[in-house]
Amino acid sequence: MVPIQKFKDIIGDEFVFNDELTIQRYARATLTKSTTPAAVLKPLNSTEVTAIIETAKEFHVGIYPVSRGCNWGYGSACAVGDGQVILDLSRMNRIIHVDATLAYAVIEPGVTQIQLVSYLKEKNIPLWLDCSGSGPGASILGNTLERGFGHTPYGDHFLHSCGMEVVLGDGRTLKTGYGHYDNAQATHVFKYGIGPYMDGLFTQSNFGVVTRLGIWLMPMPECLNMFYCNVPREGDLAAVVDALRPLKLSGQVKSLIHIGNDLRVFSSYNQYPWEKAGNKTPLTDDLREQFCKKGGFGAWNVSGAIYGTRAQVRMTRKALKKALKPLGQIRFIGDRTLVGVLNCLSRLFDRFSLFPELRTLFKSLDKVYGLLKGEPTDAFLFGTLWRVKIAVNPETVTDPLDFNAGMMWIAPIMPMTGNTAERLIQLVNPVFEEYGFEPLITVSLITERAMVSVITISYDKDDPGECKRAQECYDAFFSLIMAQGYVPYRTNIHTMKKLAERSQTFWEITKKIKSVLDPEGIIAPGRYQPFDKL
Amino acid sequence: MVPIQKFKDIIGDEFVFNDELTIQRYARATLTKSTTPAAVLKPLNSTEVTAIIETAKEFHVGIYPVSRGCNWGYGSACAVGDGQVILDLSRMNRIIHVDATLAYAVIEPGVTQIQLVSYLKEKNIPLWLDCSGSGPGASILGNTLERGFGHTPYGDHFLHSCGMEVVLGDGRTLKTGYGHYDNAQATHVFKYGIGPYMDGLFTQSNFGVVTRLGIWLMPMPECLNMFYCNVPREGDLAAVVDALRPLKLSGQVKSLIHIGNDLRVFSSYNQYPWEKAGNKTPLTDDLREQFCKKGGFGAWNVSGAIYGTRAQVRMTRKALKKALKPLGQIRFIGDRTLVGVLNCLSRLFDRFSLFPELRTLFKSLDKVYGLLKGEPTDAFLFGTLWRVKIAVNPETVTDPLDFNAGMMWIAPIMPMTGNTAERLIQLVNPVFEEYGFEPLITVSLITERAMVSVITISYDKDDPGECKRAQECYDAFFSLIMAQGYVPYRTNIHTMKKLAERSQTFWEITKKIKSVLDPEGIIAPGRYQPFDKL
Repeated sequence: MVPIQKFKDIIGDEFVFNDELTIQRYARATLTKSTTPAAVLKPLNSTEVTAIIETAKEFHVGIYPVSRGCNWGYGSACAVGDGQVILDLSRMNRIIHVDATLAYAVIEPGVTQIQLVSYLKEKNIPLWLDCSGSGPGASILGNTLERGFGHTPYGDHFLHSCGMEVVLGDGRTLKTGYGHYDNAQATHVFKYGIGPYMDGLFTQSNFGVVTRLGIWLMPMPECLNMFYCNVPREGDLAAVVDALRPLKLSGQVKSLIHIGNDLRVFSSYNQYPWEKAGNKTPLTDDLREQFCKKGGFGAWNVSGAIYGTRAQVRMTRKALKKALKPLGQIRFIGDRTLVGVLNCLSRLFDRFSLFPELRTLFKSLDKVYGLLKGEPTDAFLFGTLWRVKIAVNPETVTDPLDFNAGMMWIAPIMPMTGNTAERLIQLVNPVFEEYGFEPLITVSLITERAMVSVITISYDKDDPGECKRAQECYDAFFSLIMAQGYVPYRTNIHTMKKLAERSQTFWEITKKIKSVLDPEGIIAPGRYQPFDKL
Repeated sequence: MVPIQKFKDIIGDEFVFNDELTIQRYARATLTKSTTPAAVLKPLNSTEVTAIIETAKEFHVGIYPVSRGCNWGYGSACAVGDGQVILDLSRMNRIIHVDATLAYAVIEPGVTQIQLVSYLKEKNIPLWLDCSGSGPGASILGNTLERGFGHTPYGDHFLHSCGMEVVLGDGRTLKTGYGHYDNAQATHVFKYGIGPYMDGLFTQSNFGVVTRLGIWLMPMPECLNMFYCNVPREGDLAAVVDALRPLKLSGQVKSLIHIGNDLRVFSSYNQYPWEKAGNKTPLTDDLREQFCKKGGFGAWNVSGAIYGTRAQVRMTRKALKKALKPLGQIRFIGDRTLVGVLNCLSRLFDRFSLFPELRTLFKSLDKVYGLLKGEPTDAFLFGTLWRVKIAVNPETVTDPLDFNAGMMWIAPIMPMTGNTAERLIQLVNPVFEEYGFEPLITVSLITERAMVSVITISYDKDDPGECKRAQECYDAFFSLIMAQGYVPYRTNIHTMKKLAERSQTFWEITKKIKSVLDPEGIIAPGRYQPFDKL
């Protein structure tokens, strides 16, 4: 039984929801199945969170914290199991502190990307936030706990976080790093504290509710250049990865380097061409070639950014040119170029009504560029609508769920070698074909040594047969990558229970830790805990 | 009771030691007190480690793992309490794998700095190891678990480690990151794995015995320049820190930047001038001035290194020059300059028998330079002998314990602001004076936002009165920095029990985690666990 009245007593009637409308709203996801919560609570502060947890323990109700619920492609705001109570932390949206000298902020879970970025702009603080592509309204803290990645040198969000406040399942509040010492001066500048370094425990786990987090902000560099390289030959992926690895390893290129296949890039800016395809899926090779050639896309499309002083950027441009020269033409776009190019193209397009697809692409360019300099954008959310049948104006998309978008991501991590990338593509393409979906694939160089492939299954959620196939396709991908040892860096709510299929000890141990931090198993049952009972 | 015979059955008679000589050797430390072990075991592999732990559980004996026992200044190879059994892992010294393409190594605890560096040189692998100053024979893994720092861009050793194998107190073996999945391909290139990120738990803790570790190696840069700046005015420390912070924050200078006071630098290359001081301590202001002026030292001595392409190094030199120009003269030393300067000085010194102190300094220069390019050196161990009364030839020092060196470090972490640095010095200097020791102080910019002050208490271990004063001085420092909120980044074996004096919850929680990972409390009782019973 969910003690609705007790919750109302804690946080006020108006912040406890169990009406049908709200329940249905929170039960949506881009996955083929979603889960339905028993209620939604919106507490204001960590005292209320603690009281909620105490009550939940008493009534044996699972509490599933979400910051802003923008976990697109992995479960949105849904809990792992049905009947859990969603702890929506969006009202806990205070920017506690920004230190302009030491370049960090301390924030609550509800703080959105746009909120912090606006704050920095208003106060004229020359610091940038690494934003994820999940939109202006996405939570910074939520993405960090999910160990998400952005595109700037601060792209590893967990790496650039420092100092947590966590409400545990036993009702205690833990401050990590140095935060638990009164008067500690270095809580948000030095991660480890003294003694065991605990922060990692509260990422991708269900050990506590993180109610406060320090995040590092990037000092605005003197110069930023975006780069883009169109690689025409499909077989050149391995060569691209091997050519870029030295630049990542040496730290010359600090941003994430994104390598998307033609369809992945095309689908970011266009919905499925239903009309031209005679309403048939998957896209024929002919149409694929037609669209991608017209769009000017390569078989592989490499993009990223260079940050630094003007001289540093100039040098890295040279190094990138040299590395990619045999493989494709590289273009650089700086602030000035961008404005020029956009104006020029825009005039051209408007005058001749040319290339409608290209126009969308170039309109999005400034948004991509914005993201690279710390400005959140919803430009990437449109990409989730590929197989949605109704034509949607890209500028109206702020939530994929509003359009019943069907989309699942699976994101295996691999060592950064060309052979590995090529091998993955050889494994993945036939699976897409078998299940009748377009191969939407990126390979991103995310750290000095690792790359992640984001495999997108985009499907029509209004078509039950397609949903079934999409799920089978997902399951096939999951089995495939696990068997190959390319384990994903995060996963969706339904796959968490499978994580122990090929590994027992690790998950037994996390379960033991769970047993002391949240003895009654109140917090987010099943979340990255395959041995939890739901 | 220590089950000596059982241990002999496991690892062989010749690797179990409880003879007086061995016990005494392991009972040495540079601290004012040490602890005495009950026995010393030297297992060969993790199977033996597991069996030892099982036996220890049966007989309720504490097992204290040390890799190479070079935890100088913090307890050397001593356990936290008397009567524990030292698990000396020096025989587990296999370099399991070096990946030259992805720039990492997988090593066992006994692998020393010189061993891995020699291996890389022999195989002509152009990768550098970030070495600590603790000597060629120090363990790489041990320093990483203690969260030690080196001087290159890979100076944060834990940050540059990836993928652990850990034997737990319950006898199970845990592989972290992706390592627990069969066939995992990214174990040593991507830290987090999937689910809770656990590695931090096994640093500065007693939750397990780490038997294998992946460490990242630095691709040899095109160019390296050492820099050195002599800052004459004592009051300029704050200005130095504030001038350098932007270069650290922006990532332009990636190495640790070391700022040592005159005496700290002088004492690195010289013992206390007993004769000239008429055997009296502390050093008078007159003598301090005489020696430090003669030695060419500034009130503050800034040093570090720049890594990158030739052009990058050139640019960073410019930026450093600009930043430090108002404060002192900066000099840069590259490979060529170094050879030239050393030869020239060496001839000059030999010919005129000039400046014996300077000669030592310059002889050490190439060793410092070596450290910056991944070559371990024992040059810094000599610095531990400052108050040793017998004159020692610097080139013979490989172990401070051989000379009964009295030395304790206390290393508070602070936010990287000039005010903070200045404030710390104002707090620390009077304490040194009160207890009659020379202020040996460094302030190092270790991360983009944090600095550490390493405060050295160097004392004569043969003088019981001085030992007592040294301990009182240490305790005064500890109280002082904790009260100010400048918590140390690591601490010595005797201070671990004090860590909970100003904080309960954090340590209660680590104790709870201990209770599930090592239920019988067999591993390293008391190590970073103030609530352990000894």
